[in-house]
Amino acid sequence: MPTAIYPGTFDPVTNGHLDIIQRATSIFDTVVVAVAEDSGKDTLFSLEERLEILREVTSSLKGVYVESFSGLLIKYVKKKGADAIVRGLRAVSDFEYEMQMAMMNKKMAEDIETVFFFTSTEYSFLSSSVVKQVASLGGCVKGLVPSYVEKKLKEKYNFLK
Amino acid sequence: MPTAIYPGTFDPVTNGHLDIIQRATSIFDTVVVAVAEDSGKDTLFSLEERLEILREVTSSLKGVYVESFSGLLIKYVKKKGADAIVRGLRAVSDFEYEMQMAMMNKKMAEDIETVFFFTSTEYSFLSSSVVKQVASLGGCVKGLVPSYVEKKLKEKYNFLK
Amino acid sequence: MPTAIYPGTFDPVTNGHLDIIQRATSIFDTVVVAVAEDSGKDTLFSLEERLEILREVTSSLKGVYVESFSGLLIKYVKKKGADAIVRGLRAVSDFEYEMQMAMMNKKMAEDIETVFFFTSTEYSFLSSSVVKQVASLGGCVKGLVPSYVEKKLKEKYNFLK
Amino acid sequence: MPTAIYPGTFDPVTNGHLDIIQRATSIFDTVVVAVAEDSGKDTLFSLEERLEILREVTSSLKGVYVESFSGLLIKYVKKKGADAIVRGLRAVSDFEYEMQMAMMNKKMAEDIETVFFFTSTEYSFLSSSVVKQVASLGGCVKGLVPSYVEKKLKEKYNFLK
Amino acid sequence: MPTAIYPGTFDPVTNGHLDIIQRATSIFDTVVVAVAEDSGKDTLFSLEERLEILREVTSSLKGVYVESFSGLLIKYVKKKGADAIVRGLRAVSDFEYEMQMAMMNKKMAEDIETVFFFTSTEYSFLSSSVVKQVASLGGCVKGLVPSYVEKKLKEKYNFLK
Amino acid sequence: MPTAIYPGTFDPVTNGHLDIIQRATSIFDTVVVAVAEDSGKDTLFSLEERLEILREVTSSLKGVYVESFSGLLIKYVKKKGADAIVRGLRAVSDFEYEMQMAMMNKKMAEDIETVFFFTSTEYSFLSSSVVKQVASLGGCVKGLVPSYVEKKLKEKYNFLK
Repeated sequence: MPTAIYPGTFDPVTNGHLDIIQRATSIFDTVVVAVAEDSGKDTLFSLEERLEILREVTSSLKGVYVESFSGLLIKYVKKKGADAIVRGLRAVSDFEYEMQMAMMNKKMAEDIETVFFFTSTEYSFLSSSVVKQVASLGGCVKGLVPSYVEKKLKEKYNFLK
Repeated sequence: MPTAIYPGTFDPVTNGHLDIIQRATSIFDTVVVAVAEDSGKDTLFSLEERLEILREVTSSLKGVYVESFSGLLIKYVKKKGADAIVRGLRAVSDFEYEMQMAMMNKKMAEDIETVFFFTSTEYSFLSSSVVKQVASLGGCVKGLVPSYVEKKLKEKYNFLK
Repeated sequence: MPTAIYPGTFDPVTNGHLDIIQRATSIFDTVVVAVAEDSGKDTLFSLEERLEILREVTSSLKGVYVESFSGLLIKYVKKKGADAIVRGLRAVSDFEYEMQMAMMNKKMAEDIETVFFFTSTEYSFLSSSVVKQVASLGGCVKGLVPSYVEKKLKEKYNFLK
Repeated sequence: MPTAIYPGTFDPVTNGHLDIIQRATSIFDTVVVAVAEDSGKDTLFSLEERLEILREVTSSLKGVYVESFSGLLIKYVKKKGADAIVRGLRAVSDFEYEMQMAMMNKKMAEDIETVFFFTSTEYSFLSSSVVKQVASLGGCVKGLVPSYVEKKLKEKYNFLK
Repeated sequence: MPTAIYPGTFDPVTNGHLDIIQRATSIFDTVVVAVAEDSGKDTLFSLEERLEILREVTSSLKGVYVESFSGLLIKYVKKKGADAIVRGLRAVSDFEYEMQMAMMNKKMAEDIETVFFFTSTEYSFLSSSVVKQVASLGGCVKGLVPSYVEKKLKEKYNFLK
Repeated sequence: MPTAIYPGTFDPVTNGHLDIIQRATSIFDTVVVAVAEDSGKDTLFSLEERLEILREVTSSLKGVYVESFSGLLIKYVKKKGADAIVRGLRAVSDFEYEMQMAMMNKKMAEDIETVFFFTSTEYSFLSSSVVKQVASLGGCVKGLVPSYVEKKLKEKYNFLK
């Protein structure tokens, strides 16, 4: 009954993230989506908003839980008794950053594995940043994020104007 | 009780392969090491030798089985009722080839996931090809392959001389 | 009224190639698909077969012509009086090979440009090689190649058995 | 009579940018160099300065126009009735960013193509950032930017001291 | 009796940096570790601290000197009468940045070479940034930095709390 | 008085190789260009021809010697009492292969360093393979190889016709 942690900032969650969550549930009984409280960068959505949005868009997925964490990821993973960290890979630039993180985490906790899934090609160009950039300029992000996130982005950018 | 298939040519198995097998057993109850009968290239070791060597060096690993397969990998994976294909990633050049294969397999079987593990940095430069190249020129491959493989390589290259 | 040459082996043409041809026709009045007579590797389909298949699958595309060429590409491009060479880019590994070729061609003919289009993400994992590999093992290539090519592949591999 | 948009920040224009503009004019009748008003980062030169510099250094190029734009690039491209977006490729790191942007723009406007040219190898290491870094420390940038830009950089950095 | 300059920010020095310094001393009689006064980013350790730490951890290495420099690196290299700049390579992302810098420096000083060493695989995932990130969250960095740096990081982060 | 070995197949030597040899001589007193007797692939020029051509085109370079070697490179390097192996880097695809080789050689001989130089951008697209391909099709390779090599290529391909 292996458990995996899928960590990230999710500012906001995209269809690419959901694709990875669904792939992870086919291998792991329990997938905890772990939202970083402090990602070291300003976020558009508050921690509470990011948690609420994730819970909404994953509500129909069995075995998926949403939580926040702070501090060192690997300490959180061990405290939860998880077996693995899940990460998505889209491109070569991801690859090297992810390798660095996986090596570092392996050094700090020999018994925790990082497992990778490739994001579907249709989402391979997708990131939270590009979604925010397009939405902030009034572009359409239908098909790139869940419709609930589309609505939240509109509210946020109208409010910011 | 998820089952994974770890396919390859294993001509011969290296410590990098063993590293991936061990990582896979921490997530999957059963890991089938699937040796390609016909890899489209000439092999140094026959299929029987590759199977025998793999069985020898994985004999102490619980839940690990060694088999051969022929034809389309994805058909073999489905026939075995496995949940996932396991692959190792060492470098950027691996990345693109593996992405191509994973996409193709996903297209042919929507419900089979390919999961990736990074090879330990100490084996990141290691491949069966480089091992054979060094061994064939009389170089030492201790630490790169199990000692049983080291012995088999010596026998093979002395025999070939 | 710019004219472009789209060179390749096309053994066989895939939906990825067709995607590039269609993109090219939105910029160029005339796109000549130029099939290399001698690609330096054995082909599954003869030159005549590759030409016939390409003509069939591009018959509805306005301004697209199919021809064969031999010898140095850049000499052929100049003889045709074309303005540009068209190439598709799928991945980082393409990038470096294509850059090498573009630089070499620029050195040999200062006034001929090479222009690049990205292949649609849905075809980013696709190559003639992987199509042949899958088809030869009895896998389904629907959606990866035009249906006419699917039929030709079946004939070819049944004939070869 | 195809028209292309070449968008960027041009802070300041380098010989690498000019190389791409000249290549584009060999394919497109009209090339509009579109200067981003708000690039999301602080610029050394104001929008007015960047426009003035670009007009000066492209004044002898037939069919080249310089304009500013704000908001979503793809909306601007459609409003201008252009057929294509032009971008330069220097290196692998460019490649992935450009692919992401091209995919996103294709999603938002199916009928607009992004076409790529490789930058000449002699400018492959060149960026506006590295030019500014060297100039700000008193280094010589002759050969990397038009002499008019060299003069403007000297004025700017003397003024800033 | 060739002399090399090994420039960097060293905020703080890691075992990866020390690995490169030691490799450089096997080729060069004199290796000057040159600490950038102003790296364009905020540093955790002051210039004085970075110099002091480097002198401490390289005190046993023959032919290694530690200095600070400001302004254009290439001017400093020429003023010192050095023959070469030394840089470490860890990954593909390093590669392109380093190539850009090496090309720029070659352009500014034809007679100064940049020579590269690969970092040992065991340090290939290591950077000053990841060390600071882990240490700031209370993670263990033993084996990644000299023990003297480990102590200094603890002092710094306790002081900052 | 450090000595370096610059190994390769040199079939034939290009201006890119000469660029690396010249860079190496600015650091090393002695640079031995070591021609692989058996490179595992068919060569256009025989070992004797490759040695003769290299000696001719490096005859004016002080401290440069040309030799052949067979077997494991690292054994040859040790036998010669050299301090380092020299290699050129052109592109990302070189990077990973070279890293693999450097790691392997470091494993087999802890005290031999591999040092890398970047090839000049003007030769970054150049390889012996592309030179042979162009020359075999009657293309001009002036500026890519020394004029002596240009002559030898013409003789070779006329002879082969």
